[in-house]
Amino acid sequence: MTLILSNDYVERLLTMPDCIEALELAYLEMAEGRGISRQRSDCITPTTYSEDAIYGLKSMDGVVPKLGVGAIRINSDIVTNPLIGNTHRRVKIPAAPNDRYVGLVLLFSTHNGEPLAIFPDGVLQRMRVGTTNGLGIKYMARENARTIGILGSGWQAETQLTAACAVRQIESVKCFSPNQENREAFCARMTALLKIPVTPVTQAEEAVGGVDIVMCGSNSLDAIYFHKWIEPGMHLSSIKKPEIEPDAIRAAHKVVVHTHDTAPILVIAKGANFKEQTKDPGWNAANKIDFKKYPTLPQLIAGHVPGRENDQEVTCFLNNLGLGYQFAAAGSVIYKRAKEQNVGIGLPTDWFTETVHP
Amino acid sequence: MTLILSNDYVERLLTMPDCIEALELAYLEMAEGRGISRQRSDCITPTTYSEDAIYGLKSMDGVVPKLGVGAIRINSDIVTNPLIGNTHRRVKIPAAPNDRYVGLVLLFSTHNGEPLAIFPDGVLQRMRVGTTNGLGIKYMARENARTIGILGSGWQAETQLTAACAVRQIESVKCFSPNQENREAFCARMTALLKIPVTPVTQAEEAVGGVDIVMCGSNSLDAIYFHKWIEPGMHLSSIKKPEIEPDAIRAAHKVVVHTHDTAPILVIAKGANFKEQTKDPGWNAANKIDFKKYPTLPQLIAGHVPGRENDQEVTCFLNNLGLGYQFAAAGSVIYKRAKEQNVGIGLPTDWFTETVHP
Repeated sequence: MTLILSNDYVERLLTMPDCIEALELAYLEMAEGRGISRQRSDCITPTTYSEDAIYGLKSMDGVVPKLGVGAIRINSDIVTNPLIGNTHRRVKIPAAPNDRYVGLVLLFSTHNGEPLAIFPDGVLQRMRVGTTNGLGIKYMARENARTIGILGSGWQAETQLTAACAVRQIESVKCFSPNQENREAFCARMTALLKIPVTPVTQAEEAVGGVDIVMCGSNSLDAIYFHKWIEPGMHLSSIKKPEIEPDAIRAAHKVVVHTHDTAPILVIAKGANFKEQTKDPGWNAANKIDFKKYPTLPQLIAGHVPGRENDQEVTCFLNNLGLGYQFAAAGSVIYKRAKEQNVGIGLPTDWFTETVHP
Repeated sequence: MTLILSNDYVERLLTMPDCIEALELAYLEMAEGRGISRQRSDCITPTTYSEDAIYGLKSMDGVVPKLGVGAIRINSDIVTNPLIGNTHRRVKIPAAPNDRYVGLVLLFSTHNGEPLAIFPDGVLQRMRVGTTNGLGIKYMARENARTIGILGSGWQAETQLTAACAVRQIESVKCFSPNQENREAFCARMTALLKIPVTPVTQAEEAVGGVDIVMCGSNSLDAIYFHKWIEPGMHLSSIKKPEIEPDAIRAAHKVVVHTHDTAPILVIAKGANFKEQTKDPGWNAANKIDFKKYPTLPQLIAGHVPGRENDQEVTCFLNNLGLGYQFAAAGSVIYKRAKEQNVGIGLPTDWFTETVHP
C-alpha cells in the first residue's frame, strides 16, 4: 500500500519531540556524509492564470539511509507580485480547484525503492522549520534559558515557540508583531497551547529586551532585529536571511547556519514577470554575509565545531535555506506513526510502480 | 480529478506522431527561452537491500508554458553492479513489491498549479528517446533517405525505428546485435509492426554499410560505430554517449547534440558502492568530446543553426542526455488523450492539494 495522508493526519501523527529526534539523528548522519540532500531548484515561467502572475515548479530532495527513506518535496505554485505598502510582495495564490495550494512530499523506501507515502507539505513545512531552529536552541542557547522574546505572530511563529519549549524549560514569552489583533490572538492561543504566559507587547525592542532567547519568526523582507539590542548570553534565532541585521550577526561569538547551500538553482523562462526576492534591500544586506564561512547545524550536532562555551557568549543560529533532507527525516516519522495507527488512504503500490524497466 | 495512469494506458494514448509533434513544438519553445528544463540530479546512498547494491533517488523537471504543463520525473532505484563478462554492469533491480521498478511522472498545470496526472515513466522513457532521435532524423537526414542500419535490438531500438519511420519514408532496415536470438525476434516483431522488411545480419559492419541512416540504439558502454564505416550522405544517430567513436563524430560535417547539460548533479553518500559509469573506458573516450561546442536540437529546430546543406554531407545527432522537459511535453499529450477518451483512475485532486499555505 502507498499511503495518501492529509495535512490533518500529518499534524496529528508528527509530534514536536518525534520530529526533533528524527532531524537530530538525520543531521548527525549528514555531518558524517551518510545522509545527503540535493539543492532546491526552481523553474519559473509565465502562466495563463493572470498577466502579473508566474508559475513555479520547485523541487528539493534528500535521502537518510539510516531512517530508510528518501523524499522529494514538490511545489507547483501560482505566485503574484502585488504592491503592498511601497514594496512588491510575493503572494502565493491557492489557484488549484477548491482554492487550494499545491505542495507534495513523496516518500520512498531506500530498502526496495517503493513509494511509501504521498502527503501535502504545508504542515511539515513549518514543523521542520521550527524543529531546525529548536535544534539551534538545544545546541547553542544557555542550558538555563527560561525566557523568549519572539518577533512575529504568523504561521511560522507557532512552531518556533513549540520547538523552543521542547528543548528548554521555558517559563515565559513576550511577543511583538506589527498587527495588534494578530499578536493578541497569537498570544492567547500560545498561552493555552504551551501552558506558560505568552504576552503581547507593543514594541519590538520591548519583546526582545532582557530575554534569554530572541526568536525571529516573521515574514519580513527587512531586518527586524538589530545590533544595539544584543545583551550578553543571548541566543539569537532566525528563520529567514534578512531578519537579523548583519552587524548583529557579526557581533555574535558563535554563529551557525543551517546549510552551506546558498541559493536554489533558478531556471527562469523568457517572459516570466519574476522579481528576485534576493534583490530586495533587506536581502541585499543579508547577502553580504558570507554564510559559507560559518559552520552548519549538522557540524554542530556532530560535535565537529564547539557550541556555546560560557554563559556570557552571544550565539546565533541562522536557518538560511531549507533542505529536501528535512522532509525525508520527518517524513519517516509520519510514515511510521501512520502505519502504527493504521490511518491514511492506502492505494495499491502497483499504481505507482511498474514492470517496465525505466 | 487527478488521473492515475498505467504504462498500458500511456502506450495506448501516446502515438509516435503525437509525441513528435509535442516535442517539436516544445523544443522550439525551449530554443526561444520560453520553455525550461532543470538539470537531472541523482542522490546515491547505500541500501539495506544488499551490500553490493546502491539506492538512487533521481529527479528531473521541466515546464512548457505553451502546452500548459510542468512535469517532474522521479526514479527511486535499487541498482547492483555485477561483473558481466569482464566489466561491471549496472543492473536496476525490480525490488519494489511484486517485483516492480519505481519511476514516476507527475504532471502539473501551469494555469492553476494543480496536479493533473501521475503515471509511470517506463513507456514514456523510451518514447521520448525515440522521438528525440526521430527529430534528429527529420531535421538532419536526407529527405530521400529510405534505408536504415540499426545497431541494437533491445527496448530502445524499437522506438528508435518507429520514430525514424514516422519522419522518413523508410523502405528497409538491417539490424545487428550480438545475440542472434534477440535480433531475430526483434526483426520479426519490427517487420510486422512497421510493415517493411527488417532483416537481421551477423556483422555490425554489414548492418551499417550502404544505408542512408545509421542508428545506434544499444546499451553499450563502448563504441559500436566507427569512423572507417562512414559513407557520404549518411546520417548518424546515437542514444548514448559512448556509442559513436569520437573520430566518427569529428568526421561529420554537421553535429547536433540534444542538450548542453553535460551531466547530472551527483550527490553521493559515504559508503555507497558507486562506480561512475563515466569512468568506464568507453565513456572516458566520449567525454573527450566537447558536447557544448555543438548546437542543440532545439537550436536546429528553431532554425538558429543550419541543418544538412547537401546530399553529400555526413550529419550526426547525439542524444547525449535526457531532460525532464521531454516528460512535460509528451505528458501533455498523454493527459489530453486520457481526458478525451475518459480513461485512467480519477482520484480527488484534493488528495494532492492543500488549504495550508506551504
